[in-house]
Amino acid sequence: MRLRNKPWAEQLIQEHPELISVNPTDMAGKWQTKFAQVQPIELELGSGKGKFIIEKAQKNPQINYLAMEVQTAALGMILKRQIELQLPNLQLLQANGRDINSLFAREEITKLYLNFSDPWPKTRHTKRRLTAPNFLEQYQDILLAPGNIEFKTDNQGLFEYSLVSCNNFGMKFDEVLLDLHQSERAAANITTEYEEKFSKKGQPIYFLAAHFK
Amino acid sequence: MRLRNKPWAEQLIQEHPELISVNPTDMAGKWQTKFAQVQPIELELGSGKGKFIIEKAQKNPQINYLAMEVQTAALGMILKRQIELQLPNLQLLQANGRDINSLFAREEITKLYLNFSDPWPKTRHTKRRLTAPNFLEQYQDILLAPGNIEFKTDNQGLFEYSLVSCNNFGMKFDEVLLDLHQSERAAANITTEYEEKFSKKGQPIYFLAAHFK
Repeated sequence: MRLRNKPWAEQLIQEHPELISVNPTDMAGKWQTKFAQVQPIELELGSGKGKFIIEKAQKNPQINYLAMEVQTAALGMILKRQIELQLPNLQLLQANGRDINSLFAREEITKLYLNFSDPWPKTRHTKRRLTAPNFLEQYQDILLAPGNIEFKTDNQGLFEYSLVSCNNFGMKFDEVLLDLHQSERAAANITTEYEEKFSKKGQPIYFLAAHFK
Repeated sequence: MRLRNKPWAEQLIQEHPELISVNPTDMAGKWQTKFAQVQPIELELGSGKGKFIIEKAQKNPQINYLAMEVQTAALGMILKRQIELQLPNLQLLQANGRDINSLFAREEITKLYLNFSDPWPKTRHTKRRLTAPNFLEQYQDILLAPGNIEFKTDNQGLFEYSLVSCNNFGMKFDEVLLDLHQSERAAANITTEYEEKFSKKGQPIYFLAAHFK
């Protein structure tokens, strides 16, 4: 979801290199140095306004979280909150998902979250879906075994596609839920802003937990 | 779904060995001899009242169909129609799904249909679900490569379970649909009695096409 441009965001990002890395290919293999403690790093691809990753970081101080997002306006909003919160286990990075394996070393990431990714519904855009094989290949590289991924979406077509794509790639499914908010996982589920809104409208949320190795 | 007992059914079955085989372990490897022509055999596990398999047989004379069902009452109803129709490419068999690989030789079946199988929702009954690994193992034996299966259900829990089970077994998914009747497959879809009824109530029908080899 594209946000309105926020002129202040660009400047805020430039003023806080200790909290946010911009186009950080030189950080591959060195992400642990950005955090207060060396501990497993979990990455969210496309953090939006950051509700999910901030709550994750607050609830799990024993894990380091990386919020990756391409949009300046969205990053500005996460950064604003992080400036207040100063969570020692949260770092932001501005980058596109396309070249994700240039941003991280092999096995640098312990878990990957894909929340409400762009569905790219047209067939000619299939390759842009974040569960397309060209992306899965990169995730497999940067993830430490067993290579866990958690994927949530409200988009039926994207979920159907992702089940087939992840299966055909050879991933092993740990759990599939066709209505996350009515499941046993609901109580512990941390929602995104988007998820909150659409779930309240009665839209079921689809969930896949799977691993590579 | 259990049907009321039909006293006439038992006798009808005994009178028509040319159309229906009862507990037919001696038929393993010889099913082609029951049909008018040697051509690929497709098997439905749990044919209920037979709407699906009869329509399949009518529409695809180039394929032999086997309707397997355990309930005498249901088999009686399929048999009654087959006595009228005399479809040369339809045979019935009365058997339980438990020992399916004693009923068929290796690679004797070209495709398997699982339509609205009993969901066995309780965890202690997991092994009875027709997509549990102990069944998948047997299907793999009797199926000719690529080992195609088509699975339909309206039961969310069974579908979630089946996606994980088939994936973990190593099956490759060809297509997953979370609302078959609103999909491109809807026009060519042949419904079961049960499917007809529940789909009209607005219940989405889940669909998985997958193969073993």
